[in-house]
Amino acid sequence: MTRWEPNARGRLELAALELYGERGYDQTTVAEIAKRAGLTERTFFRHFADKREVLFYGARMLQDSLVRVIADAPTGLPPIDAVGASLEAVAGQLEERRDLARQRQAIVAATPELLERELIKLASLSAALAGALRRRGVTDPAAILAAEAGVAVFRVAFQRWTSQSADSGGQTLAQLIRQSLAELKAVTAGR
Amino acid sequence: MTRWEPNARGRLELAALELYGERGYDQTTVAEIAKRAGLTERTFFRHFADKREVLFYGARMLQDSLVRVIADAPTGLPPIDAVGASLEAVAGQLEERRDLARQRQAIVAATPELLERELIKLASLSAALAGALRRRGVTDPAAILAAEAGVAVFRVAFQRWTSQSADSGGQTLAQLIRQSLAELKAVTAGR
Repeated sequence: MTRWEPNARGRLELAALELYGERGYDQTTVAEIAKRAGLTERTFFRHFADKREVLFYGARMLQDSLVRVIADAPTGLPPIDAVGASLEAVAGQLEERRDLARQRQAIVAATPELLERELIKLASLSAALAGALRRRGVTDPAAILAAEAGVAVFRVAFQRWTSQSADSGGQTLAQLIRQSLAELKAVTAGR
Repeated sequence: MTRWEPNARGRLELAALELYGERGYDQTTVAEIAKRAGLTERTFFRHFADKREVLFYGARMLQDSLVRVIADAPTGLPPIDAVGASLEAVAGQLEERRDLARQRQAIVAATPELLERELIKLASLSAALAGALRRRGVTDPAAILAAEAGVAVFRVAFQRWTSQSADSGGQTLAQLIRQSLAELKAVTAGR
């Protein structure tokens, strides 16, 4: 019998982040996550393939959103600005998740296996952005360079965003992305 | 008894790349590499910690060279140009190694474990370049962005360089680095 559980995915994610933070990622089991969330292991596995996916499904959703926004960007927009606009557009989806993002970053940074996975995900994100640009007619190496530049901008902005507290009146992720892109443009212009 | 073996490191590297290419990285043992090179396992382990290091010691040497060149760059050189100049300066060290580099790329691309290692090495390279820039007084995020941009430029140039054959009269790695940096500057300028 399958019972509908309100916001099971969100509850599982919260429980997992709590437990990873408290006792470490390696020491946490799926059974414990399900228990903390007041759900069954079976429910866990309806939402996530394994305990690692809890930390990475968001990155996949983000990548899909970015690719869609790039595809829909106005014709003639320079590739770097199509990437910048897509990053700003998806930033809104993350804005409410700053505390979760901060917890997640701390867990990933503390676990070599997860750091490796994060690098793979970022490489995959860069490849996906380059692919989306190519489908707009952007040739290589411009597509690859704009994609890599976009990932660098996103990493810098995300890092700043998670290091601000949500109620400090800090900048939004979208603002930080715009600012980091402006800084990249200044840096590459040799300023 | 330790016998001096002329160019043991180079012979071991050649033998390893041959074997990785012929039978796959996973299927190759250190004993086989040493045998193919006409050397002992003991000699292998005097030069390399394990069979993976054969593929990555060059990256480490490259990183150290880049950091030194950035440290010695003229004061006042914009960070992106300090990085660009360092990449061009070390390109000369690689110029004779194009065939080896191509063999290596094919092996890394075919082996997920090695691809992950490559991503880790590139992240470490970016962090090292950013550190070298900070020691020149460059602040963040400019240091991080210039370093990430430099790694992207190097990857694009290296990829092009290894896909040209050595005797096709193609461009040198240094030329391709200069060209890729110019392309990055054009991309981030929105052209």
